Amino acid sequence: MIGNENAVMRLLQYKDTLKKLKSLGFSKVFSDNLADTVGVSPSLVRKDFSLFDISGHKRGGYRIDNLVERLDQILGRNVTQKVIMVGAGKLGSALMNFRAFEEEHIRIVAAFDHDEAKQDAKAKIPVLPMDGLRGYIAENQIQLGILTLPEDAAQRVADIMILAGIRGILNFSPLQLRAPRRCIIRSVNLELELEHLIYLISRTLEDEEASEEDSGRKDD
Amino acid sequence: MIGNENAVMRLLQYKDTLKKLKSLGFSKVFSDNLADTVGVSPSLVRKDFSLFDISGHKRGGYRIDNLVERLDQILGRNVTQKVIMVGAGKLGSALMNFRAFEEEHIRIVAAFDHDEAKQDAKAKIPVLPMDGLRGYIAENQIQLGILTLPEDAAQRVADIMILAGIRGILNFSPLQLRAPRRCIIRSVNLELELEHLIYLISRTLEDEEASEEDSGRKDD
Repeated sequence: MIGNENAVMRLLQYKDTLKKLKSLGFSKVFSDNLADTVGVSPSLVRKDFSLFDISGHKRGGYRIDNLVERLDQILGRNVTQKVIMVGAGKLGSALMNFRAFEEEHIRIVAAFDHDEAKQDAKAKIPVLPMDGLRGYIAENQIQLGILTLPEDAAQRVADIMILAGIRGILNFSPLQLRAPRRCIIRSVNLELELEHLIYLISRTLEDEEASEEDSGRKDD
Repeated sequence: MIGNENAVMRLLQYKDTLKKLKSLGFSKVFSDNLADTVGVSPSLVRKDFSLFDISGHKRGGYRIDNLVERLDQILGRNVTQKVIMVGAGKLGSALMNFRAFEEEHIRIVAAFDHDEAKQDAKAKIPVLPMDGLRGYIAENQIQLGILTLPEDAAQRVADIMILAGIRGILNFSPLQLRAPRRCIIRSVNLELELEHLIYLISRTLEDEEASEEDSGRKDD
């Protein structure tokens, strides 16, 4: 088990980059290449790899095939993961058509929405009534769900999903979901991400103004 | 300037929660309430607040109005921030209609897409040709952009945005964007988030199996 969450995210990014390099015809890669693409230092790449007993040659770099194989072992990805989408509004629908998921063995098998106008049992990814959610999860042993419901429904529906056997939820509602230990929640709060960015921009602008003012005077 | 990125995200979450509590008629709040909603310990809430000279009364809690005012001062949010959407595909369109943005003084003023079929200069949020991007940013002094382009176009278009004066990009492409120091990039990689969740689920399942096996034998 990898203890550090950030390290896991980096390993996933390395793997993603390696697959792209391979599709371009590369067979070897250097820690500097990986570092550039992922946006970390080459020494961190080497540190991550040495943690998992991945070794390269100083001059020759790493063989991409070996690296991908080792990363797959560590990250445990070989079977296609079935995922349900809960909420088939604009965001849910956009994510249902996200091409990148398929490339990574992630398959959205069904969606659920309480709105009859959105339901369509015959669509490529069927959109089913919400009251079938619990049964579907249990029957198909679904472990992972993406939740794009509005705040007022999110916790209630998450509770149903967890009761039915869901082990992980990627939560797009602005609510901080409560869950028992057996279910892992990861939240993507788009509004907070933007607000955070706005805060960071305003601070860098202030810093620049301050340093411009500083160039004229020392104390006052 | 707040040094810790996680602390900024928590302050934004506190503010968000406080506004909701206020709309429910609350006038006071305790660190325990905030901790529950944000999913951290009450002592971390108190530590965050003491860092910014926010004080409460042990028995009385914090006055919500005072807290929101102080958080607004710290986070510097009072004007509506104009944001452009670059890429008007499914994800871009979904985000353009994201209600939560408006509530947080975030206004998407225009979108850009190279696909003529998606362009509509008369829409509520006009969708304009990509060759107008640079001029629009400069003329309207836009600082913030959301990028939902596919990987092959993302870096090239980001370069144009930055040249035109953009200071922050919320990046939804799976590419790690390169940018000069004056532009801040925040990336939301949905595919990596899901893969990470899959990894975490597989590890908790293994742990559970291991602990079930352990109950029968000690060494082997």
